[in-house]
Amino acid sequence: MDSPQSSENWGSSGIIPANHPRRESLLIREKLVEALRENILTEHGLIAHGRGECFDYLIGETTTPFAKRSIEISASLLLLAKRPVISVNGNMAALVPEELVKLANEIPAKLEVNLFYRNEKRLKSIKEKLQRAGATEVLGVEDEQVTIPELFSERRRVSKEGIFSSDVVLLALEDGDRTEALVKMGKKVISIDLNPLSRTSIFSTVTIVDNVTRAIPLLLSKVKEMKTWDRESLVNLSKNFNNRENIAIALSYISERITALSADFKGKGKSI
Amino acid sequence: MDSPQSSENWGSSGIIPANHPRRESLLIREKLVEALRENILTEHGLIAHGRGECFDYLIGETTTPFAKRSIEISASLLLLAKRPVISVNGNMAALVPEELVKLANEIPAKLEVNLFYRNEKRLKSIKEKLQRAGATEVLGVEDEQVTIPELFSERRRVSKEGIFSSDVVLLALEDGDRTEALVKMGKKVISIDLNPLSRTSIFSTVTIVDNVTRAIPLLLSKVKEMKTWDRESLVNLSKNFNNRENIAIALSYISERITALSADFKGKGKSI
Repeated sequence: MDSPQSSENWGSSGIIPANHPRRESLLIREKLVEALRENILTEHGLIAHGRGECFDYLIGETTTPFAKRSIEISASLLLLAKRPVISVNGNMAALVPEELVKLANEIPAKLEVNLFYRNEKRLKSIKEKLQRAGATEVLGVEDEQVTIPELFSERRRVSKEGIFSSDVVLLALEDGDRTEALVKMGKKVISIDLNPLSRTSIFSTVTIVDNVTRAIPLLLSKVKEMKTWDRESLVNLSKNFNNRENIAIALSYISERITALSADFKGKGKSI
Repeated sequence: MDSPQSSENWGSSGIIPANHPRRESLLIREKLVEALRENILTEHGLIAHGRGECFDYLIGETTTPFAKRSIEISASLLLLAKRPVISVNGNMAALVPEELVKLANEIPAKLEVNLFYRNEKRLKSIKEKLQRAGATEVLGVEDEQVTIPELFSERRRVSKEGIFSSDVVLLALEDGDRTEALVKMGKKVISIDLNPLSRTSIFSTVTIVDNVTRAIPLLLSKVKEMKTWDRESLVNLSKNFNNRENIAIALSYISERITALSADFKGKGKSI
C-alpha cells in the first residue's frame, strides 16, 4: 500500500502526474507551499498540516460515517445560532477560501480572521484572499478588537462584532487553549480537526474529525439541505450528541484500521 | 492528555517555557524552521516532519522495545559492513548533525548528502553544516556522481565512492522508490522512519520506528558497545530478524495505545 511518507518528495518539477495515487494530497501540499510564499501561512502551519496528513491517512483519507454525523449536527447548530462566526486561519484560507465564503453566505455567518502567529501583513493577506474569493465583510483585521479572558496568546484578540459576541464558532486547526476559553465563555464551538486527541477536539462542543478540504464542502451542502427544516427538527437532531463519545468512536475506528493493516504484515517477509 | 495539536501554536515570541509539557517537540520545530531559513530544509521537509510528529505521538514519543531491538540489529549490520554509508538529508542535518558525524567516525562509515529537492545551494549548506559539526569528508556534493538504475528522481544521483559502492546504507525520511532501488541493487538498507507504513519502512532490511533525535544517539551508543564483539556474535544477533514482523509489531503497538486512549473517552462527557 502507499503511504504519506512515500509522497513526501515528489520532486521540484511542479508536475504531478494525473494518475499519481496521492495526487490530491500532493496538490494540497503545493497550495500550502504557495501560501507560505504568499505570507498566508507560517512554517508552523506546514508542520501542522503534515501532522494532519498522518491522521487523515489513518482514517483512510475519506469522510467517515461518524464525521458525517458530526457535520450534520454542526449544520443544525450553525442554522440555530443567533450570531454564528467562522474563524479563519492561514491553513483554511489557503485551502478552501471560496467554500468558506459560500458557507458564510449560506448560513449566514460572519467571517473573522484569527491567527496565533499574528501580524498585520498576514492578517491583510488572508483578508484579501477571502475578498478575492468573494467575501464582502471580513472581521478581525481593521474592526474593533477586544480580548478573550484567561488567554495569553495573540489569539485572544477577537473582533467585538464577531467572535466576542458570537454564540456558535466554527474553527479548524486551532490551539486548545482558545477553544477551552471560548467554551468557558458559553459559546458552542465546532471544530474541524483530524486529530481526535487534540485539546481542541476534546474541548469542542462538536468535533468533525475530517480534512477541511472535504468537511467544508459537505457542511455547505448540509446547510443548504437543512435550511428548510423547522426549528424543532434542528433541535432534535443534535440533542443526544455527546462529543466525548464521538471522539471514542473516532479512536476505535483508527485503532481497528491499524489492527487490520498490522495483520497484513504478520507472517510475511523473511529473515535477514 | 496533551496532544501534538495543542502545541502547534506556541506563539512567535521564540520563548518556550522550561516547564512546557511539549518543550522538546517545540524546540525541534524551532530548529527546523531555522533550517528552512538556512536553506538546509525545504517546505516539504516541514510537512514531512509534521507527519512524523503524529506517528511519534502515537508511539508515545519514546523509543519502544521493538525500536531498541531494531537499533541493536542495525548496529550489528553497520559493524559487519564492508562499505557502510550514512545518507544525509535536510531533516537529519538540521536535527542531529553532531551525532551523525560521531556515528560515522565510530563505525566508521562515510557520510553522503542525498536530496530529493536537489540544488547546489542546498547541497553546499548541508555539507557545511556537517563540516561545522566536525565532518572531514562529506560525499555527494563535489565528488564523482553516478546514477542508480530504475530511479527517475534527483535522488538517483549518488556518489560513486559512497552509496553506489556501499553494502549497507543508513537513511531516514526517505522516498520509497529509492529505498526499493537500493535494495534491488543488493544493498542492506537501514531506515529510521516514524511511519511504519511508509514504503521506505516496508522495503527496508531493518526499519527503526523512532524519532531520529532519539534513534541516532542510541545507535551511536550501541555501536560503541558492540564494537568489541566478535564477528560471529554480530552475525547471530541479526539472523532471525524479519522486518515485516517488526512492522506488524509496531502497528499492533500503536493500535493498542489508541484503543486504551479510546477507553478514556467512553461514557464521559455529556450531550449538547
